[in-house]
Amino acid sequence: METKLLASIQSPKDMRNWSILQLEELAKEIRRVIIETTAQTGGHIGASLGAVELAIALHYAYDTPQDKLIWDIGHQAYAHKLLTGRYQTFSTLRQLNGLSGFLKRRESEYDVWEAGHASTSLSAAMGIASARDLRHQKYRIVAVIGDGALTAGMAWEALNQIGQTKTNLVIVVNDNSMSIAPNVGAFSRYLTELRSAPAYTRMKQEIEQLLDSVPVFGGPLRKTIERVKDLLHHAVLPRNVFEELGFKYYGPIDGHNLSELIPVLRNAQLVDGPVVVHVITQKGRGYRPAEERPGEFHGPGPFEIQSGQFIKKPQPPSYSQVFSQTLIELAKTHPEIVAITAAMPDGTKLDLFQKAFPDRFFDVGIAEQHAATFAAGLAIGGMRPVFAVYSTFLQRAYDQVIHDICHQDLPVILGVDRAGIVGGDGATHQGVYDISFLRAVPNMEIAMGKDERELRQLLVSALDRPHPVALRYPRGASRGLDLTEPLKPLPWGQGEWLAHGGDATIIAIGPMVYHALTAREILAEEGYDIGVVNARFIKPLDTALLRQVVQETRAIVTLEEHVVAGGFGSAINEWLNAEAIELPILNAGLPDEFIDHGSASYYLNLYELNAEGLARRVRTWLPQTERAKK
Amino acid sequence: METKLLASIQSPKDMRNWSILQLEELAKEIRRVIIETTAQTGGHIGASLGAVELAIALHYAYDTPQDKLIWDIGHQAYAHKLLTGRYQTFSTLRQLNGLSGFLKRRESEYDVWEAGHASTSLSAAMGIASARDLRHQKYRIVAVIGDGALTAGMAWEALNQIGQTKTNLVIVVNDNSMSIAPNVGAFSRYLTELRSAPAYTRMKQEIEQLLDSVPVFGGPLRKTIERVKDLLHHAVLPRNVFEELGFKYYGPIDGHNLSELIPVLRNAQLVDGPVVVHVITQKGRGYRPAEERPGEFHGPGPFEIQSGQFIKKPQPPSYSQVFSQTLIELAKTHPEIVAITAAMPDGTKLDLFQKAFPDRFFDVGIAEQHAATFAAGLAIGGMRPVFAVYSTFLQRAYDQVIHDICHQDLPVILGVDRAGIVGGDGATHQGVYDISFLRAVPNMEIAMGKDERELRQLLVSALDRPHPVALRYPRGASRGLDLTEPLKPLPWGQGEWLAHGGDATIIAIGPMVYHALTAREILAEEGYDIGVVNARFIKPLDTALLRQVVQETRAIVTLEEHVVAGGFGSAINEWLNAEAIELPILNAGLPDEFIDHGSASYYLNLYELNAEGLARRVRTWLPQTERAKK
Repeated sequence: METKLLASIQSPKDMRNWSILQLEELAKEIRRVIIETTAQTGGHIGASLGAVELAIALHYAYDTPQDKLIWDIGHQAYAHKLLTGRYQTFSTLRQLNGLSGFLKRRESEYDVWEAGHASTSLSAAMGIASARDLRHQKYRIVAVIGDGALTAGMAWEALNQIGQTKTNLVIVVNDNSMSIAPNVGAFSRYLTELRSAPAYTRMKQEIEQLLDSVPVFGGPLRKTIERVKDLLHHAVLPRNVFEELGFKYYGPIDGHNLSELIPVLRNAQLVDGPVVVHVITQKGRGYRPAEERPGEFHGPGPFEIQSGQFIKKPQPPSYSQVFSQTLIELAKTHPEIVAITAAMPDGTKLDLFQKAFPDRFFDVGIAEQHAATFAAGLAIGGMRPVFAVYSTFLQRAYDQVIHDICHQDLPVILGVDRAGIVGGDGATHQGVYDISFLRAVPNMEIAMGKDERELRQLLVSALDRPHPVALRYPRGASRGLDLTEPLKPLPWGQGEWLAHGGDATIIAIGPMVYHALTAREILAEEGYDIGVVNARFIKPLDTALLRQVVQETRAIVTLEEHVVAGGFGSAINEWLNAEAIELPILNAGLPDEFIDHGSASYYLNLYELNAEGLARRVRTWLPQTERAKK
Repeated sequence: METKLLASIQSPKDMRNWSILQLEELAKEIRRVIIETTAQTGGHIGASLGAVELAIALHYAYDTPQDKLIWDIGHQAYAHKLLTGRYQTFSTLRQLNGLSGFLKRRESEYDVWEAGHASTSLSAAMGIASARDLRHQKYRIVAVIGDGALTAGMAWEALNQIGQTKTNLVIVVNDNSMSIAPNVGAFSRYLTELRSAPAYTRMKQEIEQLLDSVPVFGGPLRKTIERVKDLLHHAVLPRNVFEELGFKYYGPIDGHNLSELIPVLRNAQLVDGPVVVHVITQKGRGYRPAEERPGEFHGPGPFEIQSGQFIKKPQPPSYSQVFSQTLIELAKTHPEIVAITAAMPDGTKLDLFQKAFPDRFFDVGIAEQHAATFAAGLAIGGMRPVFAVYSTFLQRAYDQVIHDICHQDLPVILGVDRAGIVGGDGATHQGVYDISFLRAVPNMEIAMGKDERELRQLLVSALDRPHPVALRYPRGASRGLDLTEPLKPLPWGQGEWLAHGGDATIIAIGPMVYHALTAREILAEEGYDIGVVNARFIKPLDTALLRQVVQETRAIVTLEEHVVAGGFGSAINEWLNAEAIELPILNAGLPDEFIDHGSASYYLNLYELNAEGLARRVRTWLPQTERAKK
């Protein structure tokens, strides 16, 4: 691959005297590198291909890193990474100890702001701008936000503050009509109208010119015309929504045309006060398969460049797919079931539900807060709403879960997808806090099956619950069990005592149950008698079962792919204390640190949560408890 | 008090054939009842006085309860309560076992939606509307939302979905230019412009008429005029932001004029698709002191009607006040300190900071998500941001705390106000989940002083921390300690071993330490030797101190005004397990249920968390642990 220009750039300064032609050549090289790298590593190819010229133009027009460039969600910024000294290491993208798939402050001084969740850039930029102004500094600040990210409430909250200030801040709206899926909502429709704004702007000018052209003669007509012009100037000249909120607006600009982009970005810096530059780009630009299938190419795994086919090992359906397909089965006989996603129809696999029941499916955009409360409203209206959402994004709806769903005790089902370690997306996306934050909330019921068969059964059972239910399930492929047996419910609130054991009993949640079973076998060979309980229910706990277990075992091990702090094991601790049961207990789970990108199996091994690790821990710990007894 | 009309209403139906004059008389009666009741009980008088005519007009124009009336935050809806069968019990407002200060579904079938937090009504209404449409039902739905509540992102998220649908839904924007404080932000400024819209609407009409009046004669002039009219009609006739988003817009309407309100609300029902009715009201309307001091009369305690003076027992400054005053002291020598509130300058007492340092104070509106990320941006820009926020509203910013503050490990200080039981505001406002949800997040440090002196010291110490810090403090009056000694830091991470005790040691957090000390005294008289530790730090725990403690005591009691699930005691449990220390442990804290309005002292007594209750529990529990040993 010929990348002469890219290879010659150590920092953006090195290209700031280049010609447009050279920059265009550079854009081609960057595209090739992005395509060839992500074909190997997987990654967010679509958004990044769409922002190649934008990244070049921004680093060309601004004096980075003195000027602060803030990307909303780092995954659109692969070109930014390549321009800022990370070309040589780019092949490690999203790999363990390699480059992050998002921005990372410790990776580069050009990475001002880290974000894996959408819509934070405007608030961040406003904070940095306020700091700059208070400290009488002079650097420039530019935030790049997608049209999809503008559907999120926090972007609105930020616009609301920024629009009333006089601070110098440029917001580039990178409008590709997509979030991950095609963008939805009234504002997206509005942006589409704005995209035809050149005609619109010309129209305003035309009216003025037409009125100017009216021959001036005295009397009422002259006064009439003057009055019309006056009114037009002072009131009727339409302002778009950004202008109404106090922004200067430039746009729409072709985001792939450097000759257009660079001067506009330069001019925008000179304006006093906040500015919106509305840039039109195409997701996946320059790679035909990604242009044609932008949803699939949002963040795919490895693919074959020539054909655009994904390289997939044959593997069982994902948990998300099992969840969605089960929901479809149930919806056939339950007309009250409706499904909600916040801009994740592909990721949650609710696109399958959408195809089956288009009227009973709602994509509300990147709007988790609204999604949760919308679900509460649907429940009040007599429906059975199921909101499937990644654990990490459910954090956005926490108050709504407490205040709207749980406080009113409404039968909303939360499908908590990507619960556990998520792999390549890394620290911003780990689904490892939800047990702690959900468990604290009254009325909430929380369950997780040990495999996809139990996930299906739990979903059936959850439908009959008169309370809010959170059903957790992991990212990725399920175990490949036969799912052809008729759907039937599990008795609600009951765990499963898989193996008795006098020395200790491992109480595990979710697929960790299988690690517990293997650990039991490993330890059995060494003469230990270890029991295993599949808890299934995190809240309420199956206390009837637990009461039996504690009578037959001399120690308890809790096991979860979740932080220990406040997690499942913590619930067991509290119950034991409440019952005044004194048994040694080991809480196995994730430590109190952010977990970077890398495979789940790597981290389960690192933290001794897989079978071998767990066996090792139990082997070390059990003698301690015996000593404590003596 | 003469309340003939009000007393004659069992349900809104009883007034639906009344004349406007009678309704106006009814409005007067309702105002008197609201004023005279809240003068006794305290309560949200301001917003409710502003919505008296609106409540009457809505129940008059709509066929409630078949039609669904949704109030955004129930505290504006006292008139609604009085009109819907709760006149006789209204004097119990906000009292234990009395009427809730907000709507309550179990209080009345007219209470469709419960809300103590702002900005949920639009999402709820959209949910109910979707359910209605899917079920082919025909009832009408109207949501009432304040202009202040529109600053919150979730309202934007809802508008974004509603505006693109064709569902029949009326949104009344109750615009009084206030949230609790005067409303802020670009959209508020925009609404102010819209308020002059009658002139604006007339202007559009005037232009058309003027153009119509141009004498028609042939040639280019005629064509010019035709072209201008054409352009005006098709493009330039300005649409306001609501219209751009897909709503029909009626307004502005005088919200205190029933002859204007009722027909508009009736007409709005007839429109197909979503409608915004923009109603102008005055907060505190009809009670001079509340009109003149709307901030103070947002939700005051008891007051003297004639003078408008608040009836206050002389009492020590509130914790909020101590926090803000300490921050002011520190800010004098720390130019990097800035303070942020989300529409709560009065409640958080940051209004004092605002007066002292207007440039370093930010009220971002009802926008906790933005506030948290804005703080993160300020920290990156080199400032020391302090975001003071009620524990219950911090729930709105949970993802931002995780993703923007803690993941980037930024030195943001969260002043977690109203931590614990809050009294009259009840279930939606309890600050009893934050330890659980914050403790799970890596990099977060959490502390709570036993009294206001420690709060001050902890704030000084927190300034030197390179990590995010959450400082909790309760609602209401502090202990009245002498605060004149020079401000000095506390050693970070260190608790305080207040009393040694061999039988058991109570490890308490915050002002619960004082209950622990008294419980120790009570139990000492019975021969028990009980120790007390003021933990101060929830995260990280003072493990050095704890290690000493466990060597000298035979049992541990944890004590907190917070749910047990995942709370402070849970942190102690996890640490004991991690250290393989086997001691009997009692976790005293709040149970897993929503706690209604009623005084903190009532609930501490009910849940055996005050000194007597705790002594009782320890007295019962300790012998159990001894038995378990044998």
